[in-house]
Amino acid sequence: MLQLTLAAIAIVCACVLVGCAHDADLSRGGDSWAIAIHGGAGAIKKGESPELEPRYRESMRRVLDEGKRRLAAGDAAMDVCEALVHMLEDDELFNAGRGAVLTERGDVELDAAVMDGATLKAGAVAGVKTVRHPISLARLVSQRTSHVLLIGDGAEAFATEAGVERVPNDWFITPRRRGQLEKELQRRAESKAAAATLDTRFGTVGVVALDRSGRLASATSTGGMTGKRPGRVGDAPLIGSGTYANATVAVSCTGTGEQFIRHSVASGIAARMALIGETVEQAADHYILRVLDSGDGGLIAVDRHGRIAMPYSSAGMYRAAADSRGRDEVRIWEE
Amino acid sequence: MLQLTLAAIAIVCACVLVGCAHDADLSRGGDSWAIAIHGGAGAIKKGESPELEPRYRESMRRVLDEGKRRLAAGDAAMDVCEALVHMLEDDELFNAGRGAVLTERGDVELDAAVMDGATLKAGAVAGVKTVRHPISLARLVSQRTSHVLLIGDGAEAFATEAGVERVPNDWFITPRRRGQLEKELQRRAESKAAAATLDTRFGTVGVVALDRSGRLASATSTGGMTGKRPGRVGDAPLIGSGTYANATVAVSCTGTGEQFIRHSVASGIAARMALIGETVEQAADHYILRVLDSGDGGLIAVDRHGRIAMPYSSAGMYRAAADSRGRDEVRIWEE
Repeated sequence: MLQLTLAAIAIVCACVLVGCAHDADLSRGGDSWAIAIHGGAGAIKKGESPELEPRYRESMRRVLDEGKRRLAAGDAAMDVCEALVHMLEDDELFNAGRGAVLTERGDVELDAAVMDGATLKAGAVAGVKTVRHPISLARLVSQRTSHVLLIGDGAEAFATEAGVERVPNDWFITPRRRGQLEKELQRRAESKAAAATLDTRFGTVGVVALDRSGRLASATSTGGMTGKRPGRVGDAPLIGSGTYANATVAVSCTGTGEQFIRHSVASGIAARMALIGETVEQAADHYILRVLDSGDGGLIAVDRHGRIAMPYSSAGMYRAAADSRGRDEVRIWEE
Repeated sequence: MLQLTLAAIAIVCACVLVGCAHDADLSRGGDSWAIAIHGGAGAIKKGESPELEPRYRESMRRVLDEGKRRLAAGDAAMDVCEALVHMLEDDELFNAGRGAVLTERGDVELDAAVMDGATLKAGAVAGVKTVRHPISLARLVSQRTSHVLLIGDGAEAFATEAGVERVPNDWFITPRRRGQLEKELQRRAESKAAAATLDTRFGTVGVVALDRSGRLASATSTGGMTGKRPGRVGDAPLIGSGTYANATVAVSCTGTGEQFIRHSVASGIAARMALIGETVEQAADHYILRVLDSGDGGLIAVDRHGRIAMPYSSAGMYRAAADSRGRDEVRIWEE
């Protein structure tokens, strides 16, 4: 009986210890890599745009394949995240760089952030108007300054100093986005309820990656919300809100930015994993399915073991994922 | 022996359960109130400015007394935080509003944020140049828009729309701050090490409060760092980094903003209290004494029971605290 009760005590104590040390004791995945990509939770509705759907899938596939190639070759997670967001910024289908949504004034204001989980180095820009690749300017903030966030004219001045590629503001603007702004302004003039599809409201692009050396990184870039007030900044460029990476997990969010800010979603996922041993899926689901309202958006996250979570509560989310164990998928809705 | 071992098992189990339910089971403090105020971790060194020291103490005392009066009278925490930051913004001793530090270009760019813990409503502005009270503009963002953060020209346009008081940029500038900028630029020209006192580098003002209805709120306002790059934004206006409030705790930070951003300090404190049952002192100390580097700064925090934490790792921090149980103190260093 004594042995039995001592064993019981030992088991209880062991459970407590395991609960505390859960995260620290898991061994690294070694040579494995993993990547997740999103093109925004403001996705087209199923069956709504038969001509756009294959184009979105092809774009996500092209970006995913480039990510797979680079990670398999041993490239650093932060380099891969930046390079893939570059591709998405140049792709006018997505709300980032060229093809970004318009402010209520009819111009484009871009935000972006990067974070390297291995070093906690982070860089971000908000409200830039002439920088072709905001994600690269954000990366340069993390590399060449002691700062994290540069905004507006100050960010533009840094862009000049850094010598990055510039374009006139209307280079970013596509007829599709101009049409969406017109519809949105008309809707407001008529005091109608919110637009039927999130597609016209918001979107963002983001990439999270685990590289073969075990480093995690995150990158997010956006034009914000259609018809936004000039100067409005959402969660994308805010470290801890829409973008975060540390040694445990890398996160990139998309959706109603204000909600992600109020709940510190990106760093909150890292906190739940570190403090109460939740898996990346549990921590991501906690925010998307329980804390935020349905329709607020989604996120992508990858942990240091290469586990990927991609929950969303909007109608769809352009997303893609791959890893060294053979996972390889491009999705828009539940399929 | 059997009884003894069963009792031991029961105790271990009880500890586990208490650990999990710790926060949820504490009852509200009832009619009590508490307040903490900081005037920045970039404090003058002990004995360095015999003429400035009493002025700082008098200012903090005046602000604290107003806070005590209002909270005892039953004012809402968010109203009190805004009103007291107003006083600090008008006081040229502190790095916020009039008396803010200068950018490397010689002008002033102001950032501020508020968060109401009862509603999670948050508002913030960054890079404003003509708004006398950035904290009130931040509050208006939370009240009159669906957004959280407005920056630069967009924030100025909102200020015009909201009809808040405007001043020319040089109204904010004092001879003392101009002198500090000149010294800082000279130091850089001579490539000398960092300035000897943090006083010339940074500062911030912040107020956190618990009101008699049990509501928590936080407000932070700053001019940033002396000689900062135009467009640089620190942690003060970033919800979750330098400012945060929910139903558990309200936090306002001061120091090397970039470090507070990388570690999501303000919302991290809330997370540690909610997830692993740390007290406000434990969670605040965790960041200031262990996660951040010595000299990075400090913070003030008050929890829903009126417990106050004010740790700092800089030479000093202008700070004051009071509560309905009779606590009443103004401090600069360890005393």
